[in-house]
Amino acid sequence: MDLTERTTSSQTLYKGKIIDLELHDVVLPDGKNAKREIVRHKECVAVLAVDEDENVILVEQYRKPIDGVILEIPAGHIEEGETPELAAKRELLEETGFVATEMTYVNKYYTSPGFSDELIYFFFARGYNTSQRNPDEDEFINVKRLSAKDFIRLIDEHGTTDEKAMLAAYYYQARFM
Amino acid sequence: MDLTERTTSSQTLYKGKIIDLELHDVVLPDGKNAKREIVRHKECVAVLAVDEDENVILVEQYRKPIDGVILEIPAGHIEEGETPELAAKRELLEETGFVATEMTYVNKYYTSPGFSDELIYFFFARGYNTSQRNPDEDEFINVKRLSAKDFIRLIDEHGTTDEKAMLAAYYYQARFM
Repeated sequence: MDLTERTTSSQTLYKGKIIDLELHDVVLPDGKNAKREIVRHKECVAVLAVDEDENVILVEQYRKPIDGVILEIPAGHIEEGETPELAAKRELLEETGFVATEMTYVNKYYTSPGFSDELIYFFFARGYNTSQRNPDEDEFINVKRLSAKDFIRLIDEHGTTDEKAMLAAYYYQARFM
Repeated sequence: MDLTERTTSSQTLYKGKIIDLELHDVVLPDGKNAKREIVRHKECVAVLAVDEDENVILVEQYRKPIDGVILEIPAGHIEEGETPELAAKRELLEETGFVATEMTYVNKYYTSPGFSDELIYFFFARGYNTSQRNPDEDEFINVKRLSAKDFIRLIDEHGTTDEKAMLAAYYYQARFM
């Protein structure tokens, strides 16, 4: 079965700083009509970074959409003209002061393809910690370092977590333990 | 450091079928002002389901935001009055005809806490396949069954994947292989 939905008309309802919102009229595979709400988002990177002591580098950040502080792995937008790998190195250094000496691309994935085109390039990094942090003006971040074992335990025991951190924990356990 | 951002005013820019969009004016921890774009989304479930032959149940679906067909694990909204576990059982049966005889809650996570409050309850299910599928009116789904090994290989080799499927593959390898 051809699953494609054909757009017959579309409108941009909102153009923002981080996201745009579009509404599409589509024709379904059976010929019926439907509406699709689409959030456009820049491509991003997320990095599982491990230092010389086998500690995982984590960032604790307040996130307005969930009105709470959450533990994540370092992540951020890919800037204009930047490769995903350069973005991963830059975000790591800016957010945490971590210098990557090895940066391995793992995979890329859509975070929520039902309503958003946000695509994340996922990397695994090795390197060392420095004090050269330089977060964005509106970013307030606490850096945490946990052994891989403690990180995985935290993900398992914590009530609610971040998708990138959970993915990183399972990836680390699957591939390195 | 207290990382909380206090909302001073907010407006709902769009109220839709799947998502709402809000714009908040916030005060940052250093007293400066910023704007936050927030996508509100219903809570969801996602299920890694394994049948008697140790095959993983997957769904292939066209997703308008990425304009393409993508392989995912079964997932869907938690309906009003439903527990996450019941939603997981219902979505599995509706989308794939799979009857869960065991349903284990693993964890819950935010898919993209930087701009969205979408929360996914992640389950691991065992059970058996039936032909009792009944997808939603606007859902067109191909069901696929892959051995865990082939599923993990596919995730590793595929160019771009779905976050839930990737998480499920690493989880399965970390915990069962």
